[in-house]
Amino acid sequence: MIASPYLLYLGHVNDEVGIKTSRGLAVFRPDACVGEFRYDDCELTLGLPCMDFAEAVAAGAKTLILGIANAGGKLGDDLVRDAVSAIEAGLDIASGLHNRLRDEPALVAAAARHGRTLHDVRDPRPDIPIGNGKPRAGKRLLTVGTDCSVGKMYATLCLEKGMRARGMTADFRATGQTGILIAGGGVPLDAVIADFISGAIEQISPARDDDGWDLIEGQGSLFHPSFAGVSTGLLHGAQPDALLLCHDPMRQHMRGLPHYTPPGLRETLDANLGVARLTNPRVQAVGVALNTSKMSAADAARLCAETSDALGLPCTDPYAHGVDPIIDRIKECFEPSSREPTLSH
Amino acid sequence: MIASPYLLYLGHVNDEVGIKTSRGLAVFRPDACVGEFRYDDCELTLGLPCMDFAEAVAAGAKTLILGIANAGGKLGDDLVRDAVSAIEAGLDIASGLHNRLRDEPALVAAAARHGRTLHDVRDPRPDIPIGNGKPRAGKRLLTVGTDCSVGKMYATLCLEKGMRARGMTADFRATGQTGILIAGGGVPLDAVIADFISGAIEQISPARDDDGWDLIEGQGSLFHPSFAGVSTGLLHGAQPDALLLCHDPMRQHMRGLPHYTPPGLRETLDANLGVARLTNPRVQAVGVALNTSKMSAADAARLCAETSDALGLPCTDPYAHGVDPIIDRIKECFEPSSREPTLSH
Repeated sequence: MIASPYLLYLGHVNDEVGIKTSRGLAVFRPDACVGEFRYDDCELTLGLPCMDFAEAVAAGAKTLILGIANAGGKLGDDLVRDAVSAIEAGLDIASGLHNRLRDEPALVAAAARHGRTLHDVRDPRPDIPIGNGKPRAGKRLLTVGTDCSVGKMYATLCLEKGMRARGMTADFRATGQTGILIAGGGVPLDAVIADFISGAIEQISPARDDDGWDLIEGQGSLFHPSFAGVSTGLLHGAQPDALLLCHDPMRQHMRGLPHYTPPGLRETLDANLGVARLTNPRVQAVGVALNTSKMSAADAARLCAETSDALGLPCTDPYAHGVDPIIDRIKECFEPSSREPTLSH
Repeated sequence: MIASPYLLYLGHVNDEVGIKTSRGLAVFRPDACVGEFRYDDCELTLGLPCMDFAEAVAAGAKTLILGIANAGGKLGDDLVRDAVSAIEAGLDIASGLHNRLRDEPALVAAAARHGRTLHDVRDPRPDIPIGNGKPRAGKRLLTVGTDCSVGKMYATLCLEKGMRARGMTADFRATGQTGILIAGGGVPLDAVIADFISGAIEQISPARDDDGWDLIEGQGSLFHPSFAGVSTGLLHGAQPDALLLCHDPMRQHMRGLPHYTPPGLRETLDANLGVARLTNPRVQAVGVALNTSKMSAADAARLCAETSDALGLPCTDPYAHGVDPIIDRIKECFEPSSREPTLSH
């Protein structure tokens, strides 16, 4: 287990998507976060007190979370130097980057010298099976998206909170480093060996018979040329009963690929339903989640209404406006008793 | 480099698909293979002299190829014992199984003691990039299939031989352990980390401007619930101009999954073309390759003709009947000058 509370690292990063791990922890585990560490050239903030490593230790912090992301997930010299300083100040280090803390001799030596622990959240467990595609009991929802980093984790976590608030049993299943840090478990799917992608998802969302939902965090996009293989294996392993489509309406091009335009919502939904049907022919779409954080309230409301009309699905910004319309649709589709009043007309 | 000639291991395996690596070497590198090693309960043969390890060394063998496959790719105790005996007799060991020779202390110790080398063909190189999907020069063909193990590697290698025989420049690009052993290079795609699948294919089939073809060995199937993620990343990384659809007409269910029926040929082709279009909108199908090894000649000819009519594509068994109809179609589609006589009518 990673010792809390945490100091969240921003460093020099000035790309909002690049700090999504640190921000995810600040939003969904606020009680566990004492502060943020950033340089003067970082113009972003999580709204937490700004601290250096010694101040964080004095405030009770136990672990520095290197909550920044970059394609390929490399550890730069800057990051290593900062992590060594944090260790010297008395902090453990947790990282979700592809390159491992344990592969940096300077960090391993500093941790040994000061009795601190290095946590590589992206190390998958060693016993992941090959996927078998056998139908299993329980209800599962998967978030899918037009692109990477469009709000799939946020939508899934908001849905968990909303369903629990309405008395339903629902459990978030994490597939990325931020989700794993928030949930305390899961699989770092992008670090799994290619042959085991679907098996990894079968493993983290096993059969259940308590009438509860597994809410599985989606990754990538079927339309992202770098990562669609991951998204495909995720769809097959999840055997989803329900898909929630996530989209960022401000996205101009596919993340990291200026030469690729994001796909349309209908096209994305149809492609995901088509792939999902291989392991669950009864899969259905239950809603659309838009990230409207960069829009005016009026524009956001209009876009949600238009999207809902166009696709025949409830559409909301889960973080800004809640998830009730989506939960209503889930109940309609999967709890026959809730439909009876409608059916009697 | 792996020292040849080879002794090919069959062991106790009685599943023809389970010895496909050993058989692939016997078929496509016959000059490099001196014999086969098998127990009395193994009813299969590659048509090579049966030898124990000492006899193989006396016949000039330098390396024992553990050319057997099983889901998950585990090394059993039997296999480790045999490999130790082979090392003691004077052979190097090469393996394409998921579990690595280097992780077996008994093998590492025996190799050190006797000055022999262990080759794990399934270790990907460490510098694989994230795929970028940028259009690149050159012509590429990818073999795709209704299932795993339906003849994609055979079809690709037969096509390389056939194209070269007709004066074309064409190079086989291996993506599996057998192909790598045959070609002397390539990427063990199923051992690559999920985020790097498409990047690995971009790396082994870089831009080329010599008017030659990269013939890329396909893996898995979009319709195999265990491995479709690999097939998806392969399609995106390959940016194929041409797809060759491979199928085993005797296959009753998806390999390893008795509860899954193989998809239809048209459905498979449409799905693969749809996925491939993301990175190469001009992709087209150029033929169908059937594995008719278990059919009578008359049945095989009839099935090829029927399949060709149904799909409007040349159809052949590449290994039994050659690949000329497929090469003709490739020339028609991609060498405008060869079409002129037809167009002038």
